[in-house]
Amino acid sequence: MQKVGILGGGQLGRMLLQAAANYPVETFVLENDPDCPSAHLCHHFTRGDIRDFDAVYSFGKGLDALTIEIENVNIDALERLESEGVRVYPKPAVLRIIKNKIRQKEFYTQHGIPTAAYVVTANKAELRAQAAFLPAVHKIGEGGYDGRGVQLLHGSTDLDAGFDAPSVLEKMVRVKKEVALIIAVDAAGKHALYPPVEMVFNPDLNLLDYQLSPAEIPTEALWKVEAIALSVVRHLGSPGLFAVELLIDESGEIFVNETAPRVHNSGHHSIEAHYSSQFDMLWRVLLGFPLGNTKAILPSVMINLIGEPGHSGPARYEGLSEVLGIDNAFVHLYGKRETRPGRKMGHVTLLSAEKQDLVYKAHKVRQVLKVVSDRSSGSGAGATS
Amino acid sequence: MQKVGILGGGQLGRMLLQAAANYPVETFVLENDPDCPSAHLCHHFTRGDIRDFDAVYSFGKGLDALTIEIENVNIDALERLESEGVRVYPKPAVLRIIKNKIRQKEFYTQHGIPTAAYVVTANKAELRAQAAFLPAVHKIGEGGYDGRGVQLLHGSTDLDAGFDAPSVLEKMVRVKKEVALIIAVDAAGKHALYPPVEMVFNPDLNLLDYQLSPAEIPTEALWKVEAIALSVVRHLGSPGLFAVELLIDESGEIFVNETAPRVHNSGHHSIEAHYSSQFDMLWRVLLGFPLGNTKAILPSVMINLIGEPGHSGPARYEGLSEVLGIDNAFVHLYGKRETRPGRKMGHVTLLSAEKQDLVYKAHKVRQVLKVVSDRSSGSGAGATS
Repeated sequence: MQKVGILGGGQLGRMLLQAAANYPVETFVLENDPDCPSAHLCHHFTRGDIRDFDAVYSFGKGLDALTIEIENVNIDALERLESEGVRVYPKPAVLRIIKNKIRQKEFYTQHGIPTAAYVVTANKAELRAQAAFLPAVHKIGEGGYDGRGVQLLHGSTDLDAGFDAPSVLEKMVRVKKEVALIIAVDAAGKHALYPPVEMVFNPDLNLLDYQLSPAEIPTEALWKVEAIALSVVRHLGSPGLFAVELLIDESGEIFVNETAPRVHNSGHHSIEAHYSSQFDMLWRVLLGFPLGNTKAILPSVMINLIGEPGHSGPARYEGLSEVLGIDNAFVHLYGKRETRPGRKMGHVTLLSAEKQDLVYKAHKVRQVLKVVSDRSSGSGAGATS
Repeated sequence: MQKVGILGGGQLGRMLLQAAANYPVETFVLENDPDCPSAHLCHHFTRGDIRDFDAVYSFGKGLDALTIEIENVNIDALERLESEGVRVYPKPAVLRIIKNKIRQKEFYTQHGIPTAAYVVTANKAELRAQAAFLPAVHKIGEGGYDGRGVQLLHGSTDLDAGFDAPSVLEKMVRVKKEVALIIAVDAAGKHALYPPVEMVFNPDLNLLDYQLSPAEIPTEALWKVEAIALSVVRHLGSPGLFAVELLIDESGEIFVNETAPRVHNSGHHSIEAHYSSQFDMLWRVLLGFPLGNTKAILPSVMINLIGEPGHSGPARYEGLSEVLGIDNAFVHLYGKRETRPGRKMGHVTLLSAEKQDLVYKAHKVRQVLKVVSDRSSGSGAGATS
């Protein structure tokens, strides 16, 4: 039985481990929080910092393969383990490119992959000199996760909000559609593409409302999206599972926004909506088995279940029974004890042949399902990460 | 978060725990073998004997709900726990009926549920007096599990093979089809039926070849099968998940063979072939959520992966890559370290719209996929149960 380790123990690890139990694999998780969503679903849990060389190296030594569920890991240790014969998917070289937003942008332009125009700013002074480049998005080179490390700079009065560290200043794209596409690549370089999904935003709040699969885009745009995403993954040159996020502007031009070299939020619907899920697929890659079937069973929407504003503390779920009473509604809770405003606590996938039906049910789920805490806001914030 | 315990830690528990991670539930497993298929997938593993009053009682005390993955448990302890407010699904009263083959038969006849004619034999002397009743099947009242406790008695020369203990002697049905049907029942008595499946036997070896879903039976027979199975479950009067096995004879008459008040081998295909699997469904029942969708996504076959004859010891799987290369083939290995001849080591589900395609692939899987041991036969038998 192969021994495979996962760096990070969040919800992505949790869903990976649910799928792992089908395969001949002994699972290992490295994570600081012993109460994390993955801790009780692996064979061996190791408490430790995934950003620390020694923790990662000693965790990975003796394993057959390693993967990640978050990019913010110690790449030096992964390179050493790779040189000593551990299969690390995605390859550490890919993590080096992806983890740093500046290097990621340079990678796209080097390989002729369309991406929004940008300049690199080393510090705030350099940023201030770029007022003419606005409106733009300022993305910090390293250390930006979970929405932190990104600032929208509409005009020169916003420049103060920018980062005083090496960053990318990216021309703002007039986004018509935001799509994402998952690609699996095996050790022989064979690939399998999932159909692109589409992020549908609430126009009032500019918040992600739900994710629709498949994306509604014209056939030629679909071909371009697939070709561009495949080009990204081929140039990365690593086995693994990859999520490529792309923007389509008003004129139909397509830009790569970002790539994640791992299972991804935009692939959660694949658990019920596709024959082989992104989690099933990554195990096939990690263990050297043939790739699975990426076809959709039915169209779907996926709704992230986010901690309600003003609620911090032990999580309680409202509306769960009502949602589970909807035909073909599948709820995934991540087992996090504490909720915080905006924290990802779970997701819901809905299947239906009819788009109208999906949209109607997605709105119903968003109205009905809430993660709240009976402890008053503020008193219990941040008890777990 | 509700605390729910499972008595038994085999493959049924394992698949239950894979599904549990979607729900707000803290999971507990009681099982003697700390290396069992479920041990690493629950929040809390307790080593103990599920047949022992004290072990079951102290395990169940303080839990919100309890279920089983095998009938051979201490029912007295479950009754005490139930009287103290723990939800036990299936109810202990149902386990009393099911666990004893004599009581089970009496239950069917009391409620006018068609079942093969039978006599009760208290010992071997009583059995010998029933030579005129042959051909018949002798089933021991209690303690028969995993194929043990059942003898086919074709003629009077076979009588010596019968049991010298309270048993049921059942007229042999000239079986044309063997079908099984899974029904979920919630606490309010609402039910949901899965389509019946059909067991296809190898005519040469009289071994289960594969299980086909849906069963190929005429519409009126389907209605009868559903009505009979529903009648069984309604008369049992308990929430839970139930598998009713039925026999259809040459003349089209239908008999209930046995009922299992739990997730069951005949429902494994539901993981990929149905929107809501039997495991998902039982969590909905246990936690008080609405029942899921029992419709099939596609027709399917399920093949049990059985330890190869002549192989005992650490398990090795042959042909896994070839099987995983078949379109819509889903492999479930149960994580048992040691194989033994006939031991259930995993299963494979295949989906396809075409029956011919399913049958062809099922035969391919049976040819290709083997569980063997490199240790020579006999040397390592029975190291784990």
